[in-house]
Amino acid sequence: MNGFACKASFSASDFFFAGLATPQPTNNTLGSNVVLANVMLVPGLNTLGVSMARVDYAPGGIRPPHTHPRGTEILFVLYGELDVGFITTANVLVSKTIKQGDIFTFPKGLVHFQINNGKEPAAAIVAFNSQNPGVQGIPATLFAATPPVPDSVLSKAFQISCQEVDAIKSKLA
Amino acid sequence: MNGFACKASFSASDFFFAGLATPQPTNNTLGSNVVLANVMLVPGLNTLGVSMARVDYAPGGIRPPHTHPRGTEILFVLYGELDVGFITTANVLVSKTIKQGDIFTFPKGLVHFQINNGKEPAAAIVAFNSQNPGVQGIPATLFAATPPVPDSVLSKAFQISCQEVDAIKSKLA
Amino acid sequence: MNGFACKASFSASDFFFAGLATPQPTNNTLGSNVVLANVMLVPGLNTLGVSMARVDYAPGGIRPPHTHPRGTEILFVLYGELDVGFITTANVLVSKTIKQGDIFTFPKGLVHFQINNGKEPAAAIVAFNSQNPGVQGIPATLFAATPPVPDSVLSKAFQISCQEVDAIKSKLA
Amino acid sequence: MNGFACKASFSASDFFFAGLATPQPTNNTLGSNVVLANVMLVPGLNTLGVSMARVDYAPGGIRPPHTHPRGTEILFVLYGELDVGFITTANVLVSKTIKQGDIFTFPKGLVHFQINNGKEPAAAIVAFNSQNPGVQGIPATLFAATPPVPDSVLSKAFQISCQEVDAIKSKLA
Amino acid sequence: MNGFACKASFSASDFFFAGLATPQPTNNTLGSNVVLANVMLVPGLNTLGVSMARVDYAPGGIRPPHTHPRGTEILFVLYGELDVGFITTANVLVSKTIKQGDIFTFPKGLVHFQINNGKEPAAAIVAFNSQNPGVQGIPATLFAATPPVPDSVLSKAFQISCQEVDAIKSKLA
Amino acid sequence: MNGFACKASFSASDFFFAGLATPQPTNNTLGSNVVLANVMLVPGLNTLGVSMARVDYAPGGIRPPHTHPRGTEILFVLYGELDVGFITTANVLVSKTIKQGDIFTFPKGLVHFQINNGKEPAAAIVAFNSQNPGVQGIPATLFAATPPVPDSVLSKAFQISCQEVDAIKSKLA
Repeated sequence: MNGFACKASFSASDFFFAGLATPQPTNNTLGSNVVLANVMLVPGLNTLGVSMARVDYAPGGIRPPHTHPRGTEILFVLYGELDVGFITTANVLVSKTIKQGDIFTFPKGLVHFQINNGKEPAAAIVAFNSQNPGVQGIPATLFAATPPVPDSVLSKAFQISCQEVDAIKSKLA
Repeated sequence: MNGFACKASFSASDFFFAGLATPQPTNNTLGSNVVLANVMLVPGLNTLGVSMARVDYAPGGIRPPHTHPRGTEILFVLYGELDVGFITTANVLVSKTIKQGDIFTFPKGLVHFQINNGKEPAAAIVAFNSQNPGVQGIPATLFAATPPVPDSVLSKAFQISCQEVDAIKSKLA
Repeated sequence: MNGFACKASFSASDFFFAGLATPQPTNNTLGSNVVLANVMLVPGLNTLGVSMARVDYAPGGIRPPHTHPRGTEILFVLYGELDVGFITTANVLVSKTIKQGDIFTFPKGLVHFQINNGKEPAAAIVAFNSQNPGVQGIPATLFAATPPVPDSVLSKAFQISCQEVDAIKSKLA
Repeated sequence: MNGFACKASFSASDFFFAGLATPQPTNNTLGSNVVLANVMLVPGLNTLGVSMARVDYAPGGIRPPHTHPRGTEILFVLYGELDVGFITTANVLVSKTIKQGDIFTFPKGLVHFQINNGKEPAAAIVAFNSQNPGVQGIPATLFAATPPVPDSVLSKAFQISCQEVDAIKSKLA
Repeated sequence: MNGFACKASFSASDFFFAGLATPQPTNNTLGSNVVLANVMLVPGLNTLGVSMARVDYAPGGIRPPHTHPRGTEILFVLYGELDVGFITTANVLVSKTIKQGDIFTFPKGLVHFQINNGKEPAAAIVAFNSQNPGVQGIPATLFAATPPVPDSVLSKAFQISCQEVDAIKSKLA
Repeated sequence: MNGFACKASFSASDFFFAGLATPQPTNNTLGSNVVLANVMLVPGLNTLGVSMARVDYAPGGIRPPHTHPRGTEILFVLYGELDVGFITTANVLVSKTIKQGDIFTFPKGLVHFQINNGKEPAAAIVAFNSQNPGVQGIPATLFAATPPVPDSVLSKAFQISCQEVDAIKSKLA
């Protein structure tokens, strides 16, 4: 009833998480890393309607366009500089360069992205109004699902050849 | 309070819409057409949490991957045959071939698509649990927004060159 | 979390239903038939807040006045012609004759009805913003409940004699 | 934001109502009387999701079968004795005789009634989880709406003749 | 789905409660007594979003400042006279003297209190828009929790010495 | 519909706020400072259900026991060390010492506090699942409201004399 953990007893640890404290490696294809603090990791969040995450960005690193089907996101820049944006249902890009201490909001369900165009690493703390907002990274959702989204769908959708579709699929696999 | 139209007087017309009755032209790039019946067109839907739409598909026509940020969709096939699918947040494609009279569900906020792989036209009536669910067509959202999503974002996200990004942008413009 | 079926594994079949495809017999007292596609029949609807149903109407057939305690209804006429209406809490009848392809809305919880005053069969697809909207047919609720609603209640409510109450009860039993 | 009244200034009076304090006349056809304390009368209830009402019942008085489309009702017997009941969507009557100080619950949207089968007046205080739950008295909704519900609908629904329909209509007008 | 009790079978008793009918002893420190009728005691309230309680007040009795974290409260005076009030988030006290038959509203989550400054016992029936609104009595929450809230917190918060904190703690233990 | 600002046009600035970037002075009685980033300051948050705030704490500084009537809070420690806690409706104190990078959750509506028992300044970023969660600082709500909460209420509630009540009131005024 209080959003307490789904178990017989609970303690302060159920409402606590230390996993967002330190930068995580970003030496991957996207140059970024996400650590979640949602209800699966913080059981006390159950029924409370909030969660957090930490994102680290290498210089040039990107969180590619994605959506959270179950929540709005609000982002606080821990350090560094980010170019952030979301696209409205009227297909308008709403974007801004933000720096340490700034906040920016990504409305529920809308496609959005962040990219570190600076020369230094960046990091952000983000919060959601859902205990488990979920995420769909658009490129992986379309080009790396299992089973795969048919080439014909992607070819017609993006107006590219099936070879081009397959090329993207092989890179994102 | 009753979800009645936001105006001083109302009539049965505010709860009625005739615009979904007839097939609409599908001789466009996507080979499909959508007619909405949301609260902007049916004022009586105000506060009632439902809306509808009609989709027509030429043979080979497609509703490219898209999301509805504010609602679940349930689809009824009026005639023809459709290949439909959505991708979960665990990146699993859930898809099926459905035919006249079948229904299929697209959970709130998840990327989904329909394609008419048959040789005949197809049509569907879809309903939403929102008076204005909104829609984001993924290709247009990413490659045809105004102002444009930066090439660097799309290039890194899809692992393609900026020339390839620009090629898609010019086709989807 | 995604409104997926309450079971360990799921497939596209959990989001699919074929039972609305064909007309059902209407040779009964009311001259109508309802097939539901709610969460009990389409487990994937769990937590998604939508459901559908098909209604068939013989010429002269009726869906008698009823309410859905947990949802708004939006109706699409597959074929034929229907006289439809709902009554507001200010006791105003909002009604209209609608035909193939038209839609009409019945606000959450309000008493409404459909009748096929045409000479041909009619059919409709209806959608709800609830995975299980429920239904209370007013005549059966009042005159055919188990145990029965006391005669004294119905006699005073409708200002008819207990004999008249019993006559209706015996017909609706 | 706090559910305060929709006006520039407010006072304690906006959260207060004295109109439920005294019994009201019940010398009418139904032998009952309802005084509402909803948001139209208690402006401070705006956005707060609660309201109250007082019901007085003469001996033999009745609140005929009705629904509240937007709220659950919980009833406290101030004095006297009442036979109360609601009908489920499975057409089961759930009823009980309750007396001074007892409470009973009528689930959201379900048809329910109260009748004073005792020899003394009775009174109840009822609360709703809506600032404006609305009410549809079934007999008046069906037989006294404006414009009238067609005789053909009521005749078929209740399996009575149009003359019988008209007789009820003239009594309930 | 109907908010029925979480068990295989149910009866009218699940929607009924007799425990609010009679005054309860108020010969305690606060001179007041509360009897709850929430979902733990009335299983039929499950999912219905309402509950009730009875409060008895000796002359001079008090319900000390408290909050309900999950619901708005609406109060009906059964008999006697009460001084009631809540404090807004703008730190404005909204208070009134109310008497038999009056109602007053305490917005969700705000600190409020009742005191019987009259010479006669008083009693109230209160309703909530939650099946389990919860309660936090402020003095006990701060000065009698287990484990105790640190003296340093309370000393700084109320600008009193740790001895004064301990004196209150020992009285409220 | 998208939670966009309530105005005719909008820009990225409506979703942005720079006011949380820098520490604010904490040389006040409580040794702490709060800067809000709610819908009044970030108009794009309208309907989006999230907001943020920055809290700075001097060594020994405190956020005294308080509630947010309309939201759960999740706290991220920017730097320093904090002793934090909330009290459940079962009067159990749930508390923990947390340090840079840790997060802790305060369930909706429950009384909670933070105190900097360290020797260095501390700062936190907090997020809410409400665009305007509101706050009631318990000591000020009870002892510094306008008009004042009566001495008799506070004296009985805390079991202290009216002189002691007045002493606290004068300090907190």
